[in-house]
Amino acid sequence: MNRPQAIERMVEIIKKLPGVGPKMAERLSYHIIKMPPAEVERLIDSIQKARQTMKCCSACYNLSETDPCPVCADSSRDKNTICVVETPQDLIAVSKVKDYKGLYFVLGGALSPLDAVGPEDIRVAQLIKRLKSDKISEVILATDTDSKGEITAVYLSELIKPFGVKVTRLGYGLPVGGDIEYADEVTISRAIAGRKEM
Amino acid sequence: MNRPQAIERMVEIIKKLPGVGPKMAERLSYHIIKMPPAEVERLIDSIQKARQTMKCCSACYNLSETDPCPVCADSSRDKNTICVVETPQDLIAVSKVKDYKGLYFVLGGALSPLDAVGPEDIRVAQLIKRLKSDKISEVILATDTDSKGEITAVYLSELIKPFGVKVTRLGYGLPVGGDIEYADEVTISRAIAGRKEM
Repeated sequence: MNRPQAIERMVEIIKKLPGVGPKMAERLSYHIIKMPPAEVERLIDSIQKARQTMKCCSACYNLSETDPCPVCADSSRDKNTICVVETPQDLIAVSKVKDYKGLYFVLGGALSPLDAVGPEDIRVAQLIKRLKSDKISEVILATDTDSKGEITAVYLSELIKPFGVKVTRLGYGLPVGGDIEYADEVTISRAIAGRKEM
Repeated sequence: MNRPQAIERMVEIIKKLPGVGPKMAERLSYHIIKMPPAEVERLIDSIQKARQTMKCCSACYNLSETDPCPVCADSSRDKNTICVVETPQDLIAVSKVKDYKGLYFVLGGALSPLDAVGPEDIRVAQLIKRLKSDKISEVILATDTDSKGEITAVYLSELIKPFGVKVTRLGYGLPVGGDIEYADEVTISRAIAGRKEM
């Protein structure tokens, strides 16, 4: 016996979600089919509500219930510094750091020549427009430290510097609470280069 | 900034799905929010359709678009042998084996004393009822080979034997295509015990 058609279709669709393989999609499908009706309704409702209420902030492209988003609307923040991140999730991670008082800009991804993702596929033009319209004195590049994030940071830094804006990148080194034994060579080498006197 | 409330709610609900951790739930939520409307509609529709069309076979408790399911409705099958599995997914896996011509019975789980899952939480009573009403000559226990599946198999075997029914368990040994180097001790020991002359 093959999987019933309706389950097959569900598995095929769920399989396309990020990080979900065929086995996981099957497991989720059978689980959702057996869930109590109220729970499935809650699941579907949460998806629909989130999609209806979430807006893209027109200043920083953060996902938010309001436009401008709470960060851009906060008049106490330093409007001369922007921290460039890849995704709204990254923005939330950085915003947990209370010392940073500047604003943000969500690129919506990273450059990836191998996947044919170029500057026109992420918000490079919008970032440049913002640099021109707002009085920005420093851009902190907080893209991921994988190869795509690095390429993006190098590209943006070359692009932004001519505007006379200070461009910085988050510091590299050992993650706090980490075990040196398990740190990779490149990270240790960066941590040595960035060592601080005690 | 914290996660917007609507996303938070979605993450909390998705996090409860099996095999989905907090990070994965966040990733899925942000992905689903950004998906094109047609794709989200397809996802929700596939869930609703599957839940509407799937029935539980009244003979073997398999999930199917029809009741009885195609396996139970197939008159060419051996009605005297039933293979007991934990889930409908297990039934599909076993049914790929063309040599097996008998019927099935889906328990809907396995006994798990630690999680307080007892015989009344799975379909033990229904299995016994079927043994009494149908002329069953052999029950093949195809529960998982983890501790829960083993406990269930031992429990069922003790329960069924008094009915004068032959009770068998799937054979243990090395999985085909496997690497002996990575096989665990218990499996190798079972494979030695079950060795066959060539």
